[in-house]
Amino acid sequence: MADKCPSNSTAEKPIRCKAAICRNPGEALVIEEIEVAPPKAWEVRIKVLCTSLCHTDVTFWKLNSGPVSFFPRIFGHEAVGVVESVGEHVEEVKEGDIVLPVFHPDCGECRDCKSSKSNICCRFCNKLYNGMPRDGSSRFKDMKGEVLHHFLSVSSFAEYTVLDITNVVKISREIPVDKACLLSCGVATGLGAAWKVADVEEGSTVAIFGLGAVGLAVAEGARLRGASKIIGVDLNPEKFEAGKKFGVTDFINPASCIEKPVSQVIQQMTDGGADYCFECIGLASLMQDAFYSSRPGWGKTVILGVEMHGTPVSISPYEIALGRSIMGSMFGGVKSKSDIPILVKKYLDRELNLDGFISHEMSFEDINKAFDLLIHGRSLRCIIWMHEQ
Amino acid sequence: MADKCPSNSTAEKPIRCKAAICRNPGEALVIEEIEVAPPKAWEVRIKVLCTSLCHTDVTFWKLNSGPVSFFPRIFGHEAVGVVESVGEHVEEVKEGDIVLPVFHPDCGECRDCKSSKSNICCRFCNKLYNGMPRDGSSRFKDMKGEVLHHFLSVSSFAEYTVLDITNVVKISREIPVDKACLLSCGVATGLGAAWKVADVEEGSTVAIFGLGAVGLAVAEGARLRGASKIIGVDLNPEKFEAGKKFGVTDFINPASCIEKPVSQVIQQMTDGGADYCFECIGLASLMQDAFYSSRPGWGKTVILGVEMHGTPVSISPYEIALGRSIMGSMFGGVKSKSDIPILVKKYLDRELNLDGFISHEMSFEDINKAFDLLIHGRSLRCIIWMHEQ
Repeated sequence: MADKCPSNSTAEKPIRCKAAICRNPGEALVIEEIEVAPPKAWEVRIKVLCTSLCHTDVTFWKLNSGPVSFFPRIFGHEAVGVVESVGEHVEEVKEGDIVLPVFHPDCGECRDCKSSKSNICCRFCNKLYNGMPRDGSSRFKDMKGEVLHHFLSVSSFAEYTVLDITNVVKISREIPVDKACLLSCGVATGLGAAWKVADVEEGSTVAIFGLGAVGLAVAEGARLRGASKIIGVDLNPEKFEAGKKFGVTDFINPASCIEKPVSQVIQQMTDGGADYCFECIGLASLMQDAFYSSRPGWGKTVILGVEMHGTPVSISPYEIALGRSIMGSMFGGVKSKSDIPILVKKYLDRELNLDGFISHEMSFEDINKAFDLLIHGRSLRCIIWMHEQ
Repeated sequence: MADKCPSNSTAEKPIRCKAAICRNPGEALVIEEIEVAPPKAWEVRIKVLCTSLCHTDVTFWKLNSGPVSFFPRIFGHEAVGVVESVGEHVEEVKEGDIVLPVFHPDCGECRDCKSSKSNICCRFCNKLYNGMPRDGSSRFKDMKGEVLHHFLSVSSFAEYTVLDITNVVKISREIPVDKACLLSCGVATGLGAAWKVADVEEGSTVAIFGLGAVGLAVAEGARLRGASKIIGVDLNPEKFEAGKKFGVTDFINPASCIEKPVSQVIQQMTDGGADYCFECIGLASLMQDAFYSSRPGWGKTVILGVEMHGTPVSISPYEIALGRSIMGSMFGGVKSKSDIPILVKKYLDRELNLDGFISHEMSFEDINKAFDLLIHGRSLRCIIWMHEQ
């Protein structure tokens, strides 16, 4: 077991490094020194190379109450890292491997992970995600000894982090790490929704509600499948230009739909309704609009946005009965360990456009600027470099 | 065109015969003499051999207002008949053929009919169904000359009726007509939902809400697919015995679920939720129960019941996001002209149990008794013989 023999000086010891800590909901992150414990059994400690900011970080950063609101916390869940050391029982990766942390677990052993129909690992999904998946405890503390909560099993806004092996995907060294980072959550979610959940067919019509990174990745997935019409719906008209790079052919600004609802506009543009509709915002009312925009007979509506207000989706049984369906997924139905390497290969084969998602880059100390850009709709993905290049 | 040359004395002339007319909502039918006009272009006049009563007849019989309530009317939409004569352009059937009238059209030419993904004929679906599909007019009048409304493009509670060719399926002479009659609506709907819409897999778990003929047909379809557990949910405990013949393995009476909701009981019985859930009643609240009874990861909920109260289905986006889906269909996704002959063959090959659906038989003059039996939950299907045997 030569691979397990620590060849560096940090293994099995705590590492002191910098992390961007959020002390209170909605407050700017503060870069502080922290201590990252060594990995326990089935865990991997990685040096984070780069990370990016996703709307889910912002959603939980703002969340000031409820059972999933924890502070102080280290956010971040899209990243690429290099394995620093591994805990007992970890055979799958070794020191020096380039890995993608993925918030969505893939244990490979439960009924869901063994089935081609599910990616909702029934062993490790539905954790509160504020500690390590197996024992719930944290591997982080600050210099005063206060425990810092994890976020979504990743916590990549730190120079080093600890991951469960079920949240780690080894990737090729050939792909640039900033491009790979995009596959850690949002972009993979959109691609997976188009390919695995909706299974978009050639020549079909697609409507996408919300042209953030997830929505644009849906467009990219639909474009690669040969969709004939890809309608983007967004309140920000600048998104249409961004969307064109990912195959968006038509654009609707709901603010301009005075005389009739968006769903009717889409029905008219698609001769009765889009074959596939995607909701990428997380608003129940938009999920309904997406559903009513779908074609009777075979229209599929895929929900990707995370609804945080507890509002139910309310739809007419008669409209469902007309052969429509509505479905959801987490992480776009992507099975992390088997599907992400396929996406990496598609990028390396120059099929998949990832470069277009990176709108900004900055250094770790400027991380709060990345929040500002995303909150104000000015960035798609901002790559945050953790160490000097 | 020898086939088109009328070889009987009735062709091209009106036929006087008996029909069971409903003059007002909820009133007993009255058997009266009527006049049935000859078929126009693309139409077929048939002599009805037998018919059966479906809940949809009862639903519309009671309906005393709204845009789909028409009286006086000739109900009935499950039947078998023999072609008496055909109108211009009809090549598909000829005088003497045994045919199944099907309320759900299959024109074979529209985008939906040409697609394997839809059975919602976009040319002829969504008609008000109170006249012939192409011109909306009636082929029936009473002896005072008053026009009688059609029902669901069939109106089989008459010794003769006129059908559009898109509502006619030619069937083998080998199958007994009373068994074939069942495939005209309810039983085919349940079988189709299990096979075509849900695509039930071997070894899977199934929950069926409502064990009428449609629900039991779902069970029969799931049984033939090799489902390992088929849970029937019904307020009438007698349905469990009936269900066993069609593969129902477990029974839940919601009235006995005091401590926890039906969905939790099903989750416990199926290690997390049924793989496939079917709602066969038409109540939005039950559709929700069915959805919450389905397994995260891949649980499918199929809506078969027709919700007549305008109540929406209201579900949590988070619960959808866990990999569940909800879908609807009309006529169980069955494409009348291609799928019904397959079902007939499965019966003739002794794979499919149809005999068990026939709980009663009676003559045409006793038709009101068939209503009483169905309304009081005492019959599955009652075969009504139109002529003396």
